[in-house]
Amino acid sequence: MFVEAAYGKSSVRLVRVTRHGDRHDLRDLTVAIRFEGDYGESYTDGDNAGVLPTDTMKNTVYALAARDGVSEPEVFGLALARHFLDRNPVLHRVRIDLLDHFWKRIPADGGDRGQAFQRVGPDARTARITGTREGTVVEAGVTDLLIMKTGHSAFTGYPRDEFTTLPETSDRILATSLTATWRYSDGPRDFGTDWLAVRGTLLETFAEHDSRSVQHTLYHMGEAVLRSVEAVESIHLVMPNKHHLPVDLSPFGLGNRNEIFVATTEPFGLIEATIAR
Amino acid sequence: MFVEAAYGKSSVRLVRVTRHGDRHDLRDLTVAIRFEGDYGESYTDGDNAGVLPTDTMKNTVYALAARDGVSEPEVFGLALARHFLDRNPVLHRVRIDLLDHFWKRIPADGGDRGQAFQRVGPDARTARITGTREGTVVEAGVTDLLIMKTGHSAFTGYPRDEFTTLPETSDRILATSLTATWRYSDGPRDFGTDWLAVRGTLLETFAEHDSRSVQHTLYHMGEAVLRSVEAVESIHLVMPNKHHLPVDLSPFGLGNRNEIFVATTEPFGLIEATIAR
Amino acid sequence: MFVEAAYGKSSVRLVRVTRHGDRHDLRDLTVAIRFEGDYGESYTDGDNAGVLPTDTMKNTVYALAARDGVSEPEVFGLALARHFLDRNPVLHRVRIDLLDHFWKRIPADGGDRGQAFQRVGPDARTARITGTREGTVVEAGVTDLLIMKTGHSAFTGYPRDEFTTLPETSDRILATSLTATWRYSDGPRDFGTDWLAVRGTLLETFAEHDSRSVQHTLYHMGEAVLRSVEAVESIHLVMPNKHHLPVDLSPFGLGNRNEIFVATTEPFGLIEATIAR
Amino acid sequence: MFVEAAYGKSSVRLVRVTRHGDRHDLRDLTVAIRFEGDYGESYTDGDNAGVLPTDTMKNTVYALAARDGVSEPEVFGLALARHFLDRNPVLHRVRIDLLDHFWKRIPADGGDRGQAFQRVGPDARTARITGTREGTVVEAGVTDLLIMKTGHSAFTGYPRDEFTTLPETSDRILATSLTATWRYSDGPRDFGTDWLAVRGTLLETFAEHDSRSVQHTLYHMGEAVLRSVEAVESIHLVMPNKHHLPVDLSPFGLGNRNEIFVATTEPFGLIEATIAR
Repeated sequence: MFVEAAYGKSSVRLVRVTRHGDRHDLRDLTVAIRFEGDYGESYTDGDNAGVLPTDTMKNTVYALAARDGVSEPEVFGLALARHFLDRNPVLHRVRIDLLDHFWKRIPADGGDRGQAFQRVGPDARTARITGTREGTVVEAGVTDLLIMKTGHSAFTGYPRDEFTTLPETSDRILATSLTATWRYSDGPRDFGTDWLAVRGTLLETFAEHDSRSVQHTLYHMGEAVLRSVEAVESIHLVMPNKHHLPVDLSPFGLGNRNEIFVATTEPFGLIEATIAR
Repeated sequence: MFVEAAYGKSSVRLVRVTRHGDRHDLRDLTVAIRFEGDYGESYTDGDNAGVLPTDTMKNTVYALAARDGVSEPEVFGLALARHFLDRNPVLHRVRIDLLDHFWKRIPADGGDRGQAFQRVGPDARTARITGTREGTVVEAGVTDLLIMKTGHSAFTGYPRDEFTTLPETSDRILATSLTATWRYSDGPRDFGTDWLAVRGTLLETFAEHDSRSVQHTLYHMGEAVLRSVEAVESIHLVMPNKHHLPVDLSPFGLGNRNEIFVATTEPFGLIEATIAR
Repeated sequence: MFVEAAYGKSSVRLVRVTRHGDRHDLRDLTVAIRFEGDYGESYTDGDNAGVLPTDTMKNTVYALAARDGVSEPEVFGLALARHFLDRNPVLHRVRIDLLDHFWKRIPADGGDRGQAFQRVGPDARTARITGTREGTVVEAGVTDLLIMKTGHSAFTGYPRDEFTTLPETSDRILATSLTATWRYSDGPRDFGTDWLAVRGTLLETFAEHDSRSVQHTLYHMGEAVLRSVEAVESIHLVMPNKHHLPVDLSPFGLGNRNEIFVATTEPFGLIEATIAR
Repeated sequence: MFVEAAYGKSSVRLVRVTRHGDRHDLRDLTVAIRFEGDYGESYTDGDNAGVLPTDTMKNTVYALAARDGVSEPEVFGLALARHFLDRNPVLHRVRIDLLDHFWKRIPADGGDRGQAFQRVGPDARTARITGTREGTVVEAGVTDLLIMKTGHSAFTGYPRDEFTTLPETSDRILATSLTATWRYSDGPRDFGTDWLAVRGTLLETFAEHDSRSVQHTLYHMGEAVLRSVEAVESIHLVMPNKHHLPVDLSPFGLGNRNEIFVATTEPFGLIEATIAR
């Protein structure tokens, strides 16, 4: 018995250059497309009569980018979702995921050359469009946003058992690689403006929060977004705790005034939550 | 408003050596632990009174491995889940994910030395234990199982539109990196034996199937598992289509009798389904 | 017979926080240490009498950072090199490699909070100190500097043979992930200032160059550094050609006015050169 | 002034299927090509008159594979090197690097299906051909060969200073990811047979050696190869020390009889040497 199925194309790499005379604009996207629908017979019998090839999905990304342009990732994703729903009668639900890689202009001659760019990261902007016959959901996000607090971060008051060795601390490093995804309410919207507002609120709240735990800071980051950006209905945050451990310098006759840390990658804490209005 | 939250520890790396005189056994696991429960106040108020530190979760992995040993990953995961549910009253649901890395003995002197090992892969065995106050679900799986068919694989009969360029083919390479996860029915079980049976059925069905598409082969692999391994209630398969494209040699005055391919990584098809009894 | 040998410690992760009241400074380094010397008997006979453990090398990184602080990576590397040469009589040559990860302050409240940081990249600063009994060489560099030109880049006039299919182009995208390493002349120096000058020259020259090939642009970037930064004796540049291929839209009845590209990762060109005074 | 330069193509992915009726053979190679020669004017002036495009290098890989077949990687590399030297008068030195990915047949029906394969690894076979007008050097190797000893491994007798904390141990885990590269003497040779002999000797010596350090075992692995495989002139071994640290279980009231380890990735020791006749 068939419970659930999906198919699509991932890692479609699209770079679009828009030429305004000497000055170019650049959009660098990685797109993934995912179809759910009445595709049961392709699985059970190998009947491909309704199966739009994933190669055609890929071609459609390039063709629509050429024909209609690419502005905000959400807008491009909406156009793709609409196109696929219009053309594929057995398609019930289409999901478009977009990863928007940042480039800034290289300054030259006191100004910008206008045709040379430098990648900035490691963070990237994300968008997810989920379209059905009933309606469409637009989500946006950030990923790989590496942030660190060297003060105003504690972890105390937790339960202890026979396997507890962690010392309480009122002053620890809190570092994470933030992934946040938020859902917009319906209605026309300037996706670029809202995205900047959410990202700014996340960063500022992280910087200003007196943290009692990753959970505590995560919640208040999400709550601040709901408070300050009206268009956001709910937000999901994932914050791995990238542990920075103070080095024990006492064997060397040295003290560690909370200055010398080893950054570790394994193991890591993993904290997440969804906060809604 | 709080919709959903979870926290835990990931990438806990455990290697356990069991010494039987000159002959050692080796178990190499990566463990992740995830808690869901009444942790709302840790998020909203920074109250950590019920929050078992993820550092203690990590310690518990090593302590239980030392105290009780590690046999099958499912058994170790069940012990961890039980331990955490017993000790943490506000914990509703605990999930233990285990990745089991394979090592084989290095043959030496005509026999095994017994204390020297070689990693085999890239595939690995997985297990997931999900425990609540009501009961426990055991899932097992394989990941990163790279497999390829150079015959008995076609893709034809699909719809065409103005963006279609893919030629139909009755003889293409089908290559994938299989991830499969299956759920066991309740009851006592030899997890090692069942795991081998499922993996063997997946490989054999992949090898023998006359494939009309990735979907077609995926379904019949899952269906064969349900048919041949009674303990499996349902199975989820994820099969990225790692495209191998025939190289156009005509500019060089050469033919390509379906022999010369370029292996590509981007973009890739992504096919998945869950099949249940 | 023993031709050449080396040993050391890699991936030593050091984060140092310097606290100036409410305002903190952050240095985030990955350090590698490599020893060459009279270590032959440790290889042939397992005699470790002269073999400083790599664990001690790691401890030394943390101890010196605590005792003496960490300013520019070159300065910290010089101190490490000197320390190891002083203490290890059989050590002939020590190499210290440092990777300096960038963090910027998160703006908050109109100003900086001073204790919250955001990682910037993907590029990083590098330094290499090579010390012997005779003297010390200081090299610095950048790595993972992703840069792209969407104009002023051509590739024509190359030889053709029976395996040539590449069309000549007077207007292609040139994208690379630059790794550059330069050697400083002896003498006291402000490493931070020189580093910024070299990096700025590399970026500006890349942006302004009328490129006839990757080789052509690479050379002129290096040549501009030698011309504008006196302290640099020689420079080595590595520039993978990250191909961006125009998509053929003609099957869709669309033209491609050099606007729609697929970014590829495999295969890639690889161009490098060393340029000296 | 121009000191040194090279250019070429990397990550050329070639899969060749040879069809013997129902039974297929598979060769899966990643090829890199590197040219050195009189290319100075391409750098300084952008004169591409002698610059074979890297795209043509890539085409040549596929064309020669189709025209002449692919047997051992060394033989294919030699043909490529010869081809490029013959055609490019300004080419002084060409280097061909080949990575040979292993696949084994999937057993089916009690036998092999003959057209279905499973990737085995993580190790791979390597070959490097370096051709000049004066002669050609053939090297072969293994990479990513993960091996571990759980006995017969010690590390004692090393010097101690004020930064030493490592305890001496007579029984530790020794784990590494071996990369070995060896150079063959001139003359006709069965590369497959020699490769198997070297790899077997490396594994067997690793398994049987009473190790006093990574250096000690590395040397004796290389020395055993020179002793047992006549065709090998010299061998270079690189052995990162992938530390497995015993977990301190005493806080939990448990002993660790050298059974419970945490596998770490950072930092790691790095040991290498070249051994020649």
